[in-house]
Amino acid sequence: MTRLNAENVNPHIIKAKYAVRGELAVKSEEYRAALAKGDTSLPFEKVISANIGNPQQLDQKPITYFRQVLSVLENPKLLEKPDVLIDNFGYKSDVFERAKWLLSKCNSVGAYSASAGVPAFKDSVAAFLEKRDGFPADPKDIYLSAGASSGVNTLLHIICATPNSGLLIPIPQYPLYTASLAVLDATCVPYYLDESKSWGTDLDAMRASHDKAVSDGVDVRCIVIINPGNPTGASLAEEDIRSVIDFALEKNLVVMADEVYQTNVFVGKFHSFKGVLRKMQAETPGKYDAIELVSLHSISKGMVGECGHRGGYFELVGFAPEVVAQIYKFVSISLCAPVIGQCLVELMVNPPKEGEPSYELYQKEYDGIFSGLKERATALHEAFKTMEGVECGDPQGSMYLFPTIKLPPGAAEAAAAEGRTPDEFYCMRLLEATGICVVPGSGFGQVEGTLHFRTTFLAPGTAWVGSMVQFHKDFLAKYS
Amino acid sequence: MTRLNAENVNPHIIKAKYAVRGELAVKSEEYRAALAKGDTSLPFEKVISANIGNPQQLDQKPITYFRQVLSVLENPKLLEKPDVLIDNFGYKSDVFERAKWLLSKCNSVGAYSASAGVPAFKDSVAAFLEKRDGFPADPKDIYLSAGASSGVNTLLHIICATPNSGLLIPIPQYPLYTASLAVLDATCVPYYLDESKSWGTDLDAMRASHDKAVSDGVDVRCIVIINPGNPTGASLAEEDIRSVIDFALEKNLVVMADEVYQTNVFVGKFHSFKGVLRKMQAETPGKYDAIELVSLHSISKGMVGECGHRGGYFELVGFAPEVVAQIYKFVSISLCAPVIGQCLVELMVNPPKEGEPSYELYQKEYDGIFSGLKERATALHEAFKTMEGVECGDPQGSMYLFPTIKLPPGAAEAAAAEGRTPDEFYCMRLLEATGICVVPGSGFGQVEGTLHFRTTFLAPGTAWVGSMVQFHKDFLAKYS
Repeated sequence: MTRLNAENVNPHIIKAKYAVRGELAVKSEEYRAALAKGDTSLPFEKVISANIGNPQQLDQKPITYFRQVLSVLENPKLLEKPDVLIDNFGYKSDVFERAKWLLSKCNSVGAYSASAGVPAFKDSVAAFLEKRDGFPADPKDIYLSAGASSGVNTLLHIICATPNSGLLIPIPQYPLYTASLAVLDATCVPYYLDESKSWGTDLDAMRASHDKAVSDGVDVRCIVIINPGNPTGASLAEEDIRSVIDFALEKNLVVMADEVYQTNVFVGKFHSFKGVLRKMQAETPGKYDAIELVSLHSISKGMVGECGHRGGYFELVGFAPEVVAQIYKFVSISLCAPVIGQCLVELMVNPPKEGEPSYELYQKEYDGIFSGLKERATALHEAFKTMEGVECGDPQGSMYLFPTIKLPPGAAEAAAAEGRTPDEFYCMRLLEATGICVVPGSGFGQVEGTLHFRTTFLAPGTAWVGSMVQFHKDFLAKYS
Repeated sequence: MTRLNAENVNPHIIKAKYAVRGELAVKSEEYRAALAKGDTSLPFEKVISANIGNPQQLDQKPITYFRQVLSVLENPKLLEKPDVLIDNFGYKSDVFERAKWLLSKCNSVGAYSASAGVPAFKDSVAAFLEKRDGFPADPKDIYLSAGASSGVNTLLHIICATPNSGLLIPIPQYPLYTASLAVLDATCVPYYLDESKSWGTDLDAMRASHDKAVSDGVDVRCIVIINPGNPTGASLAEEDIRSVIDFALEKNLVVMADEVYQTNVFVGKFHSFKGVLRKMQAETPGKYDAIELVSLHSISKGMVGECGHRGGYFELVGFAPEVVAQIYKFVSISLCAPVIGQCLVELMVNPPKEGEPSYELYQKEYDGIFSGLKERATALHEAFKTMEGVECGDPQGSMYLFPTIKLPPGAAEAAAAEGRTPDEFYCMRLLEATGICVVPGSGFGQVEGTLHFRTTFLAPGTAWVGSMVQFHKDFLAKYS
């Protein structure tokens, strides 16, 4: 018997579930490795990783300007002869100016920065937020993080004090939240999003979940909102955000707004929690002063898509200084976010402006990525319409579609015989037949008795969509 | 009253202490900002951050080859005209070959990798370990991490199951360990290193600490060794490592070997726990099969010094597959280590070889950094010899000296009046008078009644050493 074993390691880790990189993802990587080694026994030639929002693993190209600047940051010797890079590799003069400025602020991308990030980069984030929301932002409230996941991890560590600490979590949700709450041994208080209203927030559902948890003795402290939604893609209207803030005020809840998909919006427009809160505070002075809000953003999504660089930030609004001191201490234990990722955050919030040499290409690439995402989402959505028993609202944003699937009873029986839920069973068969890896709805949570899966719409081409349609037809034929 | 306050946030975070970036570090940053704004009221012109092993914030230059490769990884367009970079910026052909290979394995440094790191990079780490230790290493046992801190965080999360889970931690220690145990609400079982034996491990001290903890009902599960030591610089002899492994076997303890300073060794040579364990296993077949060992390494220290890039790895030896599965799940929740940092790990373990175009410069830079560190350590050590009441063993390695200081009773009284320990008081006065930021010994733990401070020997020049000597003289005069 080993010293550490399933009986004695941290039981909270054992309890945590994270389907996005679970059994299906592991199996898909095995297929990919087999194909790379020349295996011809599989019924497909390529693995399509539609399980994870990883744009650059698929077709999305990085923004040229960003990467030109990063190349200079990694090798500042390139500053010595800008003309060589301008003449040969399409660099523009503003690349060098920005690289010089970034280096002057961080000294070297190989050096630790201050725990909460390079101060000058936090100034840029604050300027971006002021422009986005039309209200002031204070750099001292900004924390640069290793992606939004790391920011969520920090905040949950602070908020969760005992097993009785409860957080309202949307269902379906990105499983980072439930996994982290399991690890921290705190209580997840699920509230269902309303599929019939394009996965919007439903105040009655929130209220019912909250009140039930409180009557069960849970100390509900926080409400998490993912907007635009993951896995749903839903983008909240301003009215919905106002309702959530009113609800948070009434129930004395911290608001955690996961806004990493803020630029992936196809329908309507993005409204930030911070902007709406500040409006409400201006309209009714005093009333909303007690609101504590944290909002998170990331370089991983949107048109930036630089997940491998692990960059992001969060902004604190209304937190007590004594709590902020604990947040500072916690982030300082892991020293600092990757500095090159911090530079990318700065570039994301402060991209080339109209009239600057790199602007035109930047804007063209940005718009191209946006319209490409929208087109792919639409094509996939059209395919779903042709699939019997599959229903999916119009694509609204983020990088995902989250269709409902109705499966024949034979499928449920076959799934049960394998010890799987029917959606897991369906996704496993899909992977085996086509090489397409998606995530079963059970990984995100779904209303009892309903089935879904989440797929990204990042993969290029339409062949994979066709093979998904064919698989679905065969699957129904087999199990009906 | 805010929803979150000192009374209700996670009490384990409140309990955690992390002096390396505590009050002194914050104050030193304030001074730095004031100087940058032209403040002339301070008695110094520069802040010397000797509180943290941050080589590139001070004088250490990055290794040219590494950064050339990274520049190409960030902008693969540079692969199109290698000659331009060769002719103008001193790139060699092997830079492009390596960059191409790295890109072929990770696709893009902007894409998430597999949770445990890019498989091919883990192959390189395994090859490095085989060469270093003379025994096989298996890539599937390697996990790439965001620096060693992130690896320690993962492992402690798995090992610590209840408040009763105990880990033997050396004192003095790098406070990551005690801070993380506080956050995880587990038990730190301190064992003292022996200052009279160059801060070596003392088996009697380990045994006494262990047995006392067990008799107090603690479930002691693991022994942490930092070798070469932080903050002490001590480098363990093979015999010491053998004793620790025998002790771990006898007491059924997991061995966690923090070996991030493995190339910063001035006296003797580095012996890895893995290499020594494998030797012991070969000498006495069967006897040591039950040992569970994890060893950690990092790109932050040594001659690489790329802490801002947050890269590292750990290797698991002898862990049960069911525990490994939990480790995999835990790391997958935070997605992956920064991919550019993973590339740097690959470059660190697989640098240019003799005969390759970049070898000569690489080796020259590497040797130059090593001898520079040694010279600075020696110069600082010589200065300590001239300081009354300061005692410090010969520099052995790592990036630190950890002298004992004897302070006059007047200093202890003045410290108490400020609510500080005498070493904190001394370090605060040092910072105020000279701009030099060091960390009081209390931040690492020290035998009751003794006082120390930790200083890096990374800062260039000798002026700062001179002003430390002068400060010390003045301090003694004032408080004697």
